This record gives sequence, C-alpha cells and structure tokens, in this order.
Amino acid sequence: MYTIWLASTSSYTNLHEFHEDAVQFCLICSAVHKQELIQQIRLKQSYLCTGLDTQIEKLPSVVSKNGQGLVDFNRNIIDATSPYSVAYKINTAFYEQYGKAGWEWMEETLNHLPNDTLKIADAKRGDIGNTSSMYAKAFFDTLPFDAITVAPYMGEDSLRPFLEFENKWVICLALTSNAGHADFQLGEYEGKKLYERVIETVCKWGNEEKLMFVVGATRAQLVQEIRAMIPNHFLLVPGVGAQGGSLQDITKAAANEDVGLLVNSSRGILYASSGDDYKEAAAAEAQKLASEMATFL
Amino acid sequence: MYTIWLASTSSYTNLHEFHEDAVQFCLICSAVHKQELIQQIRLKQSYLCTGLDTQIEKLPSVVSKNGQGLVDFNRNIIDATSPYSVAYKINTAFYEQYGKAGWEWMEETLNHLPNDTLKIADAKRGDIGNTSSMYAKAFFDTLPFDAITVAPYMGEDSLRPFLEFENKWVICLALTSNAGHADFQLGEYEGKKLYERVIETVCKWGNEEKLMFVVGATRAQLVQEIRAMIPNHFLLVPGVGAQGGSLQDITKAAANEDVGLLVNSSRGILYASSGDDYKEAAAAEAQKLASEMATFL
Repeated sequence: MYTIWLASTSSYTNLHEFHEDAVQFCLICSAVHKQELIQQIRLKQSYLCTGLDTQIEKLPSVVSKNGQGLVDFNRNIIDATSPYSVAYKINTAFYEQYGKAGWEWMEETLNHLPNDTLKIADAKRGDIGNTSSMYAKAFFDTLPFDAITVAPYMGEDSLRPFLEFENKWVICLALTSNAGHADFQLGEYEGKKLYERVIETVCKWGNEEKLMFVVGATRAQLVQEIRAMIPNHFLLVPGVGAQGGSLQDITKAAANEDVGLLVNSSRGILYASSGDDYKEAAAAEAQKLASEMATFL
Repeated sequence: MYTIWLASTSSYTNLHEFHEDAVQFCLICSAVHKQELIQQIRLKQSYLCTGLDTQIEKLPSVVSKNGQGLVDFNRNIIDATSPYSVAYKINTAFYEQYGKAGWEWMEETLNHLPNDTLKIADAKRGDIGNTSSMYAKAFFDTLPFDAITVAPYMGEDSLRPFLEFENKWVICLALTSNAGHADFQLGEYEGKKLYERVIETVCKWGNEEKLMFVVGATRAQLVQEIRAMIPNHFLLVPGVGAQGGSLQDITKAAANEDVGLLVNSSRGILYASSGDDYKEAAAAEAQKLASEMATFL
C-alpha cells in the first residue's frame, strides 16, 4: 500500500498547519503496516496512542449519561485528538461492563476512528487455538481492528490464529505497568526473567511486521534492556500519566531510529476537563504530549 | 443459603427418577457456594460441566442458521443435558465472533441456565486492577455469571477485583489442555514449574471457597501432583473428548473426598448428532458421561 503526498512543507509556516492539509491531500491514508505507522509518526510528529477507556459515570456534566452520550463523547474526543494521535486503543473491558449495548458503543466508536490511525483492541485475549480463532475473528473481521493485545500464558497455539491474519498486529503482554507485574513477570524462568523469556519465545512465532509488545512506562530501566533485546519491534507503552510513568524517561530508554514506540494516555486526555470545554481540554492535553514527543524525534 | 430436600431416596427404584423429583421439590436450588456445588454433584451423581461453545455453521440441519437458531439450539441442549450437568461453561469467544449480536445471544443463553447449575464465563480475562474491575462488573453484575476464568500473567491486582465479588468464583488458568501449555507453563520458575508457582501464589489471594484452577485432562499425571498441592480446591478440567483426555484417568488422578472436579465436555455433547435427534443425542452423550462419573463417586 502506498501513501502519496501532494503537500510540501515549504509553503507552510507551522508544522501543524502542514499536517492538517497533508492529511486532507493524502490519497490513501493508513497506519496499518509498519512503514505506514512510522510515516504517520513522522507526519504528526507524535507517537501518541489515545486510550478510549470511557465510563458513563465519568462523562463531563454537559454530556448525556447514557450510551449515546458515551459514543458522542468518544467521537468528540477522537475528532479533538486525531491531529496528535497515531493510534487509538479501545479497552474492551470498559464497554463489556455495559453488556451487549457496550459492544454496540464500542463498534460505533471504532467506526469513527480515522483510517490514518492504528486501531487497537486492548482485549488481553488468549485461549486454546480453536478458541483464539474465534477471538481473532471477533476483533479482526467482525470488528475491523488493526491490532489486539494478547496474553502469553497459554503458549503458541493461543497466539497463532491472531498472527495468521494478514495486515493485523498482535501485541503481546511482556512487562506490564501494574503493581502485579512483580508477581510473575519478574521472577527467574529458565535462567532469565519470565518477561524476557516471553519476548524471546514469542519473537520466534512472528516478526516485527506483525508483532509488538506491551511494556509499562513505570519500569523504564527494564524497558531499556528490552529494547536492547528487540531493537526493531514496536512497543506499546501504557503507564504514562495516571500510573506514574514519565514520557521522557521511557522515550530515552526505548525509542529506536524509527521511534518504535506507541505511548498511551487514557484518563489524562479523556477527563482533562469535566466542563463543557472537555473537547478543547482533551485536544490541549494530546497536543501537549505530542509537543513533548516532537522534541524527542 | 440452605437447600431443603423434601424427597427421600427410599421411595425410588432408580436414581435418576429420584433426581428429577428432588430437583422439583427443592425450595432453594443453587450451585454457587462450594457446599451447594458438592450437594448438586452428589444429587446428580455427576460432575459434568457442559460447554456451550456453539457455532452457527455447526448447527444441525434442522436448526435455523442464524442467531435465533443458535439460541434455540442452546436452550434445547441445556434442557436436554441439565439432569446430568452441574455446571455450564459459556466460552465468550464463540459469541464475540458475532459482535454485539453475539453478546445478546450469550445473555439469552445464560438466562436459560438452571439455578441449580454453576454458570461459568470462560473468558480468560485479566488486566490492571482498574480494568479488571470493569471485567468483573461485566461478568458478575451486568451478566449474572457465577464464575469466570482468568489469566494470571498480570498478577494480584488483575485478579483481586474478581475475588472481591461476593458469592462468585474465580477460576485461574494453571496447567492448560492445549499444545501451547508446554511453551511457558512447564518451565522452571524460581525452583518450581511455572504452573506450580502460579497455583501456590494465587492461593494466597483467595481461599478454596472462591478459587478454582483450570487443569487440562491431557496431563493427568501432572494434575495428580497438583491435587497433592491443593487437596481441597475445585478443579475445572477441559480436554476430555475432542482434545484426547480420559475421564477415568483424570478422575483417578484428581478427585478428592468431595469430588472436587468439574469435567467439561463441549463439542462431544453439542454436536453428538447433526440430525433432528440432536437433543436426544446430546442428552445421551451427557448421560453417558454422567453414568461413567457415577461409577467413580
């Protein structure tokens, strides 16, 4: 797939003005393939992934406290943040809590995501091969996500059906950002840390064009070692903001020549304001993160 | 919660006749608490869990190949097998493959399950605490399941929200029945097998009244060792039938004084016949398994 740019930076006085026009001129915009994703990062000068972990009870007061309100809110957040986001991550749990209606709202949210962004289902799925095939169908076919997060505990056949889908990404848990990461991931497993063995083993099942890993911003030093193990893979990084990770630290620890990072922010953007300026506040927060990211590019 | 029996075995000539009447006489039927589940096993002389891994394309020819057909089929399978099943396991992947409609069919299926059976969401969920709270709400509150399967990789805070729900079970992956179990679960982790450490560690977070483990029927010898580690916990055992595990072997390896097992069969029961006798065939298959189980009780 090729992306043809008709715009040139020379006629623009500031970069965001260029970006906005360039996106409009773009004939085929996509962020699915690795090179396209890198191109979007260079274009937007951002490796921000906006996490749509939306809850009805946390919606700003001007938004209806129901499903339509949630979907409208998500659409506004997406519109406000898409100049600064190269990826969106929909956390399935937040939608499943509302049952079948939640799945409808998830689908409506997904359908509003721009095609020049990577659409990630943060679902942490994984089961025996026969069952993982159904999950792959659910998130790569029925719902047109570009990527899914998966859990490694059940081994190769639990990841294989996701890896076999063309033009889709599998994002495997490695070193997570929560307190519980210390319970199993850090222990010594066959001579290495368990998360190191997970990365080493899962890398045998797919290459860097199909496979990313989840690494938490809360453990920048360990992520630096992970980057040394896998210099070319993209890393999906939660944990900046509410969970306490530093954007600067994780970028210094883990950026590679192609950037190779998607740093997620959810609550900090979604709930930047609880007033009727929530769109502007979300845009400002995303822009602030993207501006900081631009200084590292 | 108390279950009061008005029937007595003395006036019955065969056990199944007694069971059917006893179930009707039962004032409060439940299989949620450990003692109630054991009581149901004793009453039905069965520790069968029927797995509702239903696919539209595999429905018998007499059933409509659509969502209504799937739900009708599930209801008929439930009616046909409930005299022999103490638990039902709904594999969420099989419903999610159909998107929001699939969640509706899952809910309709769940609502048809008898209250004297344990209702298990086979969902393999697990995420950071904040997110796992949403999953717990999804499956314990929005959908009234009694139990959920969870993946241990993300540690304590990923399981804690499920464990905090009252009168609900958490069924943690330990030693799974698929080929991929060998990739991580069997390796040496801090001086023991990883699955042993998982069991040992997770047992610190909840007791045998709230916590079960998934162990595959395909590794009966290892399951025998697991039983020695945790003499009193219930074990959910997939892998009998299509995956090659033996009911006799796993029962000899892992039954305790209270039985302590839920052995799952899905495809063998659901698709026992592709003809218009599928209900009778499913009942016969469930009865056959229950009859074999009765010989071990």
